[in-house]
Formats: sequence, C-alpha cells, structure tokens
Amino acid sequence: MWNFPTRAQPPPRLLLGPGPSPVEPRIYEAMARPIVGIFDAYLSGLLDAIQERLRLAFGTTNAFTLAVPGTGSAGMETAVSNIVEPGMKLAVFANGFFCDRISEMGRRYGAGVVRLEKPWGDVFSAEEAAAFIHREKPHVVAYVHGETSSGACQPGRSICRAAREADAVVIADCVTTLGALPVAVDETGVDLAYSCSQKGLGAPPGLAPVTISPRAIERIRARGTVNPSWYLDARLLEQYFFTPRRYHVTVPVSLYYALDEALTIVAEEGLGNRFERHHRNHLAFVAGIEAMGLRMHVAPEHRLWPVNTPLVPAGIDDVKVRVRLLETHGIEILGGLGPLAGKVFRVGLMGAGSTRENVVTLLGALEECLGEQGFRPRSSAVEAAEESYTAAVA
Amino acid sequence: MWNFPTRAQPPPRLLLGPGPSPVEPRIYEAMARPIVGIFDAYLSGLLDAIQERLRLAFGTTNAFTLAVPGTGSAGMETAVSNIVEPGMKLAVFANGFFCDRISEMGRRYGAGVVRLEKPWGDVFSAEEAAAFIHREKPHVVAYVHGETSSGACQPGRSICRAAREADAVVIADCVTTLGALPVAVDETGVDLAYSCSQKGLGAPPGLAPVTISPRAIERIRARGTVNPSWYLDARLLEQYFFTPRRYHVTVPVSLYYALDEALTIVAEEGLGNRFERHHRNHLAFVAGIEAMGLRMHVAPEHRLWPVNTPLVPAGIDDVKVRVRLLETHGIEILGGLGPLAGKVFRVGLMGAGSTRENVVTLLGALEECLGEQGFRPRSSAVEAAEESYTAAVA
Repeated sequence: MWNFPTRAQPPPRLLLGPGPSPVEPRIYEAMARPIVGIFDAYLSGLLDAIQERLRLAFGTTNAFTLAVPGTGSAGMETAVSNIVEPGMKLAVFANGFFCDRISEMGRRYGAGVVRLEKPWGDVFSAEEAAAFIHREKPHVVAYVHGETSSGACQPGRSICRAAREADAVVIADCVTTLGALPVAVDETGVDLAYSCSQKGLGAPPGLAPVTISPRAIERIRARGTVNPSWYLDARLLEQYFFTPRRYHVTVPVSLYYALDEALTIVAEEGLGNRFERHHRNHLAFVAGIEAMGLRMHVAPEHRLWPVNTPLVPAGIDDVKVRVRLLETHGIEILGGLGPLAGKVFRVGLMGAGSTRENVVTLLGALEECLGEQGFRPRSSAVEAAEESYTAAVA
Repeated sequence: MWNFPTRAQPPPRLLLGPGPSPVEPRIYEAMARPIVGIFDAYLSGLLDAIQERLRLAFGTTNAFTLAVPGTGSAGMETAVSNIVEPGMKLAVFANGFFCDRISEMGRRYGAGVVRLEKPWGDVFSAEEAAAFIHREKPHVVAYVHGETSSGACQPGRSICRAAREADAVVIADCVTTLGALPVAVDETGVDLAYSCSQKGLGAPPGLAPVTISPRAIERIRARGTVNPSWYLDARLLEQYFFTPRRYHVTVPVSLYYALDEALTIVAEEGLGNRFERHHRNHLAFVAGIEAMGLRMHVAPEHRLWPVNTPLVPAGIDDVKVRVRLLETHGIEILGGLGPLAGKVFRVGLMGAGSTRENVVTLLGALEECLGEQGFRPRSSAVEAAEESYTAAVA
C-alpha cells in the first residue's frame, strides 16, 4: 500500500483562467530556497519588505498591511470576521459570486445582511450606491472591486464617500485587481481590502494580502465580542507580523519567499507599466474577440482588465471548447459560474500571463476550437489583436 | 521606493527547534514544479494520493482525511470549530501551551471549557482521565498527543475509552507526532486529529493534515448552528477535496506538490523504520545530554521522541546559549514557553532532521556553547551518544 512512485512532472499548462496565473521561473527558484525558522532575522526582514511593497501595490499608508497565511478567501474572512460583530448590519453590493460569498461570511459572523442586487456583469452607479447606504445606514459596507465571476469592475469612490457619511466602514474585495490595475485604497477611502498572491501579483496561491485602515483598526480594538476566528484574528496576526513578533502560527515560509520575489518583479516592472500592460493586453484581446464576431458580457467602461468574459456564441457548448483548448493546446480557461454558467468564458490575462504572445496564442486556439464546433468567425481575431497593438504604439 | 534588490540567499540553518524541521532537496524540487489549475486532473490525482497516504500515517480508514490549506493551528481550528457548538462543554487535558490554545479556540466558538490541569511536562494517568471525563460529562474532549511546549507525550487510549462511555467525541492534537511516532487514530479511538506539514512529515509549513471519524462527521452534519468559520468548514472543504470537487478556495498548489513528495519519502522509508529512527536518535540525544550532566524535563516513559526538552543548567542563560548556537554553528533550537521560559531548551529531532549526524553535531556544539557560559560537562556527550548508537545496533 505504501508503494507510491515518485510523481511525474505536471502537464505543461498555459494558465489563462481566472486564477492562478502563470508563475515566472525566478519565483519558483526563490520558493525553493531553504526555509529558516519563523523568528529568524532573515525572515523578519523579508516580511517587512513584503509589507512595505504591499502598501505600495494597495496604494495605502496603512500600518496594518500584511499577507495572511491562507488563500484569497482567507483574506475575505480576515476582513469580515474582524470587523463584523453579531447584530451589526452589513450592506453588500451584490452583483456576482464573490459578493454572495461575502454575504455568507457576514451571516456566519452574526451580521444582518442587506443587499442591493444587480445582474452579474452590471455595476452600481454613484447615485444607486449613495441611496442604498443612506437608506440602510449599515455598520459595514462591502463591494467587490473586480468580480472574477462576471468580469466587471466596480468603482469604489462613491460607495466609500456615502459610507463615510453614514459612519460605516468599507470592505473592498481586490482579489482580482491588486497588481493588475490601480486599487488606490487610501484615495478611494476603503477601510479593509484583501487580495491573493496568484493573480495580479503572479506568485503561487496560498497567501492573502490584507490591509486595514487605522479607523477600522480602532473599531476592531473596541470590539465588544471576541472574533470567533482565532486563525484570522487581526490582533493575533499583528503580533507576529510586526513588533513584538510574538508566536502566532508557523507561517508558510516558502510562500513568503515566493511572494517576495513576485513583488521584486512587480517593482522592477513598475506599477504603472504593469497596469498599462494589463490594459493593453485586455484591449487587444477584446479587439480579437469582437473581430471574430463574439461579444463581451460587460459594457466597455466597466470591463475588468485581468479577467475577461466573452459570451459563448449561440449554439456552442462552452465545455467542449474548453476541453479542446486544454487537451490540444494545453490552455486553461474557465466557464461561467451560477447564472453565467454556459454563457461566458472566463479568460484571465493577469500577472505574467498578460502578454501579447498569450493573447495571440489564445485567440488563435480559441478560433480553432470554436471552428471545430461549427462557429464561423466574422474576421481574423489574431489580425485584429495585432492591429490593436500597432494602434496602441502609434 | 520601488527599488528593492533581488534578495540574498537565506542563511544556512540546521533547523533543530520544535519546527519547522529540515526539508530534503527533493521536496524543494517538487515544490518548484509549475503549478496547474485547481480543477486539473493532475492535481486531483495528486490530492487523492496525498489523502490515501495521510490515512496510513494517521492510522485510520476515515474517509474524511485531507490537508487543510493552512498551518497546524488552522488544523486545530478545523477540529474545534466544526465539532464545537455554542453551549457545548469542552473538556481539555491541560498540560501545555497547545492545550491552552485549544481551550481558547473552544471558548471562541462558544463552548464552556472545563480543564484538568497538570504542570507542563506531566501527563494524565488512565484513572485521572476517566475520573475527569465521568465527572464532567462533556460533549467534546481534547488532549495534545505530543506537547511541543513541554516535550511530553500523552497516551490517548484511556481518554478515548472514557469519552466513548460518556458519548463524547475526542480531539487529539498530533501536530508534533504525525510521521514521527505512531498516532494510531483508529486504534486509539480518536475522532478528530490534526497535524502539520513541517514536523514529522518533513515538508515546508503551510498545510494541516486533518482526519475526522464517521461518528464525528455525523455530528457535524447534524449541527444545529452553522460553523462561523467559512474557510475551515468541513462541509465546504469536503466538497473540494472529494467528489464533486466543487470550488471552495484556490488551494496552494505548490505546497501540495511538496507534501506529496514528502509523503513519497515517508513511503520509501516505511512508517515503522521512520518511527524507529526517531526513537533511536531521541535515545542517543538523551544519552548525550545526561552524560554532560544535564537532566531531561520529562520522565523517561513520557518523553516525546521528536521534541526533546533538556533542562537549562542552573546559572546558565539559555538565550545566550541559543544565540551562540545560531551565530557560530547555524543551528536553531528554541527555548521554553510560559512557565518553562528560561528553564528548558526545545530541541527538535524530526523528519529529515532526525539523524545520527545531527545528534552528534548538536551535542558537540551545545557542549561548546554551554562551556563558553561556564558550564563544565560531567563527561563527553558525543561519546555517550555514539555509544548509544553502538548499543542499539548490538
């Protein structure tokens, strides 16, 4: 029974789904460095540097900025569990899968959840946001900056302004946006933001960057009840990730090595260049998709750059297309969730995956796989994408 | 501000503290393999193989056996949060730091916690265990199999028998024992056991093997309240780690590659050989320590093989010794926690760290560093350890 052979190499995959995104070899090399103990000065220095650069990526001066030892959803639960107390009112802007997840967590931690609903792919206007918050007068407001399930990007400024007027704190889900487009936590007025390591930042999954404003920290310190989650308790996390570096958990040292290297790559590229790259590749991809005769699910002005949601053409089985893409081209994209199941493809162009080469490769492969299912492209997707790049340079 | 240079290599460390333990190069190589998506058939197969081998290491046939995407304490919280409901009585055998942590988590999830206390380093007899459980009639009983803080090993059989008579379920903390000595979950009668990746199994930190008996699963399914922890909810974890493999979180793929390789190494060595190796190196270390004139904190019959707690000799500052060990020999050991601060050293001989070479190296270095602080060894620690190995072979 104990005779398990050494495992074969993983199959080569081009990860162009909604995450994880491709990881650069340098990051794997960094991750494979020998671990040190959790109080080693080397690790302390590395954690400090990670935290400093996460502040820059988040666009914040929040002292409480660190990478929680868990996935993006652990980041979400860090935000929700620390700020929500039983009996509080949590107002959720509900236009996608992850908005539902926040609502579910809010209920688990005892909040009364009120929701303003929109179809997945739509976003809320400044007026809608203000009216909802002024009507509900919640303690906590939550929205998803980049909805991985729909491909829509929800602006946060008017939400945060209205919340401030109602003396509420704001949670923003930046899982799909951090490192791929400006999240501008301080400028927007967000109090609690979280993300993941494996999308815009380009590291392997397993860590959740989290930042919390002094205003929210004050409320957390003034809680009347203890956070049921010991693992994600901000007050315990804080004691390890900052002075006095007291023992909390044995952090996944190797993942911090990887995140450190990923942030070094982000620094080398420069945040502005990185955002611009994500934008450019998104535009070229859309140009290709539309040239083929497909339509995007989300209106142009609300499209998320890192996650794109072209509509599956009428009469085409999206699963068959995705299976062929994976089996014959080694390309992973995913399908829609919930109300968008079977209706959209979810294409991630993020982190190291957001390149001209990948856009062209994917469009060519997609054209081929759609063609096998009987779809006739209107014009060449690859040519349209190439033209988009040329136009961008000119 | 974005000018962060590529990081220097970590300093070489011989990790002989209470964890993490040294990681074999093969495991780092496996961890550095390119990631695949979280629904990739390659990863599904790898997770299945991990789960099958974790069952063997735990000594269980429990279907619910998987590695939670978090550290050992996330494993603890998986056990506590899923089985405890508000108003339940949790009985804790309290003889160390991690017993206190279980108590704290129990309270956070609404349990009334009752404790049977003993000094750190002592263990509970069969009679004491039975009397406590029969008197308290708790819903849940918890004990720590291997107390990393004290170096004591608590047998579980009589605890589990008494708990069964009281219709209670039993949580056993096997963080420091899995892969280093028999934990024998089924034979002992444990209902919920958890561990970590970075001690006896020899992988980097970041994953928490957890196993839950059908009897405990039944109680979890029959809960009257929802587990506040969404991230660690057994019912959600189950849906991803087994059929139908429904999306829960984006698991840290690279850490599963590492754990898979670590379990392959365990399989190649054989569990029995591995336990025997941990026992032999523990005995040789103790022989060396006692030859020097130091004493062990724990009585011989209750000593944990993977974590050893020699008493700091009178008049010696343990911090000075540990700093010298780290700075001049690159060896990490830790000091005591709580009531044992300054009183014991905590020496881990576990996973790939449990070797004859490490025992001899450490004893020699320890003799030197203690000597610098004015301690005069009674006789040669290294010679005594070598004799212990010779005697073991004869």
